[in-house]
Amino acid sequence: VLGVGLIGGSIGLAARTRADACVRGWDPCREACERALALEAIDELTPDAASAVDGADAVFVATPIGAIVDTTRLALEHAGEDCVVSDVGSTKRLICDSLADQRFVGGHPLAGAETAGVEHARADLFDGATWYLSPAPGTTGVLYERLHGLLRRLGALPTAIDADAHDRMMAIVSHLPHVLANLLVAQAASLFADGDRAPGLPAIGPSFRDATRVAGANSAIWTDIYLSNSDGIISAVDELGRRLEVVRRGLAAGDAAALASWNEAARRYRDALLGAAIAGGPIYELRVSVPNRPGVIAEIALALGRAGVNIVDMALSPSPDNRQGVVALWIAAEERAARARELIAELGFPVARA
Amino acid sequence: VLGVGLIGGSIGLAARTRADACVRGWDPCREACERALALEAIDELTPDAASAVDGADAVFVATPIGAIVDTTRLALEHAGEDCVVSDVGSTKRLICDSLADQRFVGGHPLAGAETAGVEHARADLFDGATWYLSPAPGTTGVLYERLHGLLRRLGALPTAIDADAHDRMMAIVSHLPHVLANLLVAQAASLFADGDRAPGLPAIGPSFRDATRVAGANSAIWTDIYLSNSDGIISAVDELGRRLEVVRRGLAAGDAAALASWNEAARRYRDALLGAAIAGGPIYELRVSVPNRPGVIAEIALALGRAGVNIVDMALSPSPDNRQGVVALWIAAEERAARARELIAELGFPVARA
Repeated sequence: VLGVGLIGGSIGLAARTRADACVRGWDPCREACERALALEAIDELTPDAASAVDGADAVFVATPIGAIVDTTRLALEHAGEDCVVSDVGSTKRLICDSLADQRFVGGHPLAGAETAGVEHARADLFDGATWYLSPAPGTTGVLYERLHGLLRRLGALPTAIDADAHDRMMAIVSHLPHVLANLLVAQAASLFADGDRAPGLPAIGPSFRDATRVAGANSAIWTDIYLSNSDGIISAVDELGRRLEVVRRGLAAGDAAALASWNEAARRYRDALLGAAIAGGPIYELRVSVPNRPGVIAEIALALGRAGVNIVDMALSPSPDNRQGVVALWIAAEERAARARELIAELGFPVARA
Repeated sequence: VLGVGLIGGSIGLAARTRADACVRGWDPCREACERALALEAIDELTPDAASAVDGADAVFVATPIGAIVDTTRLALEHAGEDCVVSDVGSTKRLICDSLADQRFVGGHPLAGAETAGVEHARADLFDGATWYLSPAPGTTGVLYERLHGLLRRLGALPTAIDADAHDRMMAIVSHLPHVLANLLVAQAASLFADGDRAPGLPAIGPSFRDATRVAGANSAIWTDIYLSNSDGIISAVDELGRRLEVVRRGLAAGDAAALASWNEAARRYRDALLGAAIAGGPIYELRVSVPNRPGVIAEIALALGRAGVNIVDMALSPSPDNRQGVVALWIAAEERAARARELIAELGFPVARA
């Protein structure tokens, strides 16, 4: 494992405990190395990347994106003929294009970007997580199969995807939302650009807060992501521009029927995407009005927990004075959502299906 | 009160219990009227809008936006010289432009769009909520002052704002995020337009889910909002287009420094907007890795609740298999955030400052 942060450390932990692997680790940061060793994420530390790779069956390059190509080249140089080399970068096209080697398979586990650092590494980080694999046309079958099997033992769901398709998809479902969050906060801030902030302004509602939650995400990571998928993001931006133009025309024409059907279509798309993304079928949304005192969310979560109803997703929208709010709860399966509604009503909180 | 849904019913409840008012109500929907009466949101039902208004000191028009202008005209026709008439529409310019009467003051309480229907009405719905008021140049001072005083007794914070400025602001902080949510789900859905959905696709991450939470919001309400602020939304869309063009150029040029500083600025904007929006100073974000079993959120919320640490905002991002996840918690005030971090660490969950 070259690069022992959250992802590299978790690969090490999972490989050691679930695949009986002997894990050698290396990281340019001495402190990360020693922490990884102390946390038993790796068996042994090596003085350089080359000796970590020497004699390995599989190599994972888990550095920041900007260092992946160079580190992987080095790994391929020192790895044996029968060693599979993969990476964990959030974008794939540039990396795969730069590393035409039959031992290399591009990878991207969808897990754990939130808490960086090896101290948050966990053996179960990849359980049930999609792990995209982008093999090159010349990738050796036996090495791809070994990597696939190893990832299964780590708990992940390896899914082959063309590097181009991967980056086009990520541009839409991840990178573009980050770009828009950044633009929305800038646009809202420009309302007050003269420094003359009127009292009570701005009134940031839940829709704005949700839309901008990822604004200004970790620059060290995201600058690399933006640059390494700039083509894909530009395409996504251009497509968004065309879609904005259509909405703009509907607004300019005052076309109520077109706007309503556009909005209804969005509802269906969202339900379909959410439903497809989460195992267990369609998701039902409940909205609960609650006083915003400590313990209320706990009370609701406990009541649902006692009844075995799991909360798939949750969003709390506080009122301006923080004294009350609305909790949106997403529950999988209709009968569980109905049960949740009963339980919450029994607690005395107004609750409705959204 | 003309229109006794969630907002009208809550005005009635608050006016009756907090301002000793006698509240007459009318609604075109007979069922809503009877429910409002049963819930004691109003004292008496009238057979038509004109008789509800007759002899009133203050009239609130709380119908859907599309009916506000006509209903308010009717109210102004039958209201006395000394009666203030207001509305609760989410957009203000078209309404205020259509109702040049010195007794009329446009209004927009920022509360309770989530759970429609008089059955969710509450006397405390407006506690601490900004209630925008857009007086016309000719509005009678004594009537404006009466409305302001009444809203204070309802618990709200009346804030005067020019109707144009109101709609420009709402276009950016509310309407544009709704438009973008709709476009993002459509764009993501188009990835699978050929119906050939590969296994494991799409991988909807937390950024996408947050950005699209309001996609396809209630069409009956939102079509009216879009149409009644089409100019403002078009301007916001155009400004976003210009900002997208700047980012597009940065991406095309591969300008890492520009992208990083743009991203850092977004982080500052977001912190400033969040901090300004929520009383109690700057907000600190903690990210906690948790197993996604029933009761975990409850456990954390309870521990924080016992220590008097309130959770301003919360977002749970489940892993693909729903067995684990990351909870983002927003806590006001640095020392409370630090205390929350200690408490969560004591529970054994990995926690970090975002």
